[in-house]
Amino acid sequence: MQQRKLIVYIAASTDGFIAGEQDELDFLSLVEQAGEDYGYQRFIETIDTVIVGKRTYDKVLSMGYPFPHSDKEAYIITHTPQASEGSVHFYNGNLIVLVQQLKQQSGKHIFCDGGANIIHQLLSHQLVDELYISVIPVLLGSGISLFKSGRPMQPLQLISATSYPKGLVQLHYECLPVVK
Amino acid sequence: MQQRKLIVYIAASTDGFIAGEQDELDFLSLVEQAGEDYGYQRFIETIDTVIVGKRTYDKVLSMGYPFPHSDKEAYIITHTPQASEGSVHFYNGNLIVLVQQLKQQSGKHIFCDGGANIIHQLLSHQLVDELYISVIPVLLGSGISLFKSGRPMQPLQLISATSYPKGLVQLHYECLPVVK
Repeated sequence: MQQRKLIVYIAASTDGFIAGEQDELDFLSLVEQAGEDYGYQRFIETIDTVIVGKRTYDKVLSMGYPFPHSDKEAYIITHTPQASEGSVHFYNGNLIVLVQQLKQQSGKHIFCDGGANIIHQLLSHQLVDELYISVIPVLLGSGISLFKSGRPMQPLQLISATSYPKGLVQLHYECLPVVK
Repeated sequence: MQQRKLIVYIAASTDGFIAGEQDELDFLSLVEQAGEDYGYQRFIETIDTVIVGKRTYDKVLSMGYPFPHSDKEAYIITHTPQASEGSVHFYNGNLIVLVQQLKQQSGKHIFCDGGANIIHQLLSHQLVDELYISVIPVLLGSGISLFKSGRPMQPLQLISATSYPKGLVQLHYECLPVVK
């Protein structure tokens, strides 16, 4: 059986921001194109579990969308205890322990949908197996950085780089062992 | 006559660092490959003027290399007055004025070779015409960020995205007018 992977799949501006300073995601509309989902549906079919930070979760809901992963086991990482809603679990325990446990279970892959704090913790503990970064052709100028400082050096293996007509470039990497 | 362009051509880790915290550039060796210059020579033939920050300049010299652009008009941006050495000028005036003047003159394009402070000032004043970012397949974890916060939003037009066998992806953009 193939080991379940933890996969980060996220969009960022060319200057490395995943949202504006007030969590704005307007810049994503620059690459909206009818009939083009940038491989999202194909990716989503390989996963059955989602991990997302509460702030990112709240942002999606505040935009008037229903939570898009309620058909999957979803863990909303939060400091505030809250009862599960169906397969959507509000998890206020140790993120690292959760991911280690999920990786031991059988199933499809695990999708980390952000935010930056969650990704930072997972990278710091070498728990990310693959990384998709969809680079949006814009310098946002300021905002929430995808990557925080203070992690160990970790080489990547480029799996693919795909460019699209709207100028989005999707980088897909396998994460290699950290350099000690 | 074609207007001279100011072109930033730089390498960065996938997490957006152009050097380690102590200015280390070791990570660039991850993509060294005999006979592969990632388009550098072809690029360099289109330029006749170089702008580079003093810290970046000092770093190159400290590595035991001769300054690679002494055959061009080179402006080393510094706070400390120093006499020119041939076509290498130590410039402690206003960077923005310098670039505006250079762009009015005829000649080949102008290459900004870093560092991050110089790039930030040029982007903040909408003086960058094209951007090449060679994305090195590694998460450096910490270091000097290519992009600083606090600029206006600026859309880009993807010219090309080229991936190479060692996993380097070179993104080439035209900088579009800033969104007011």
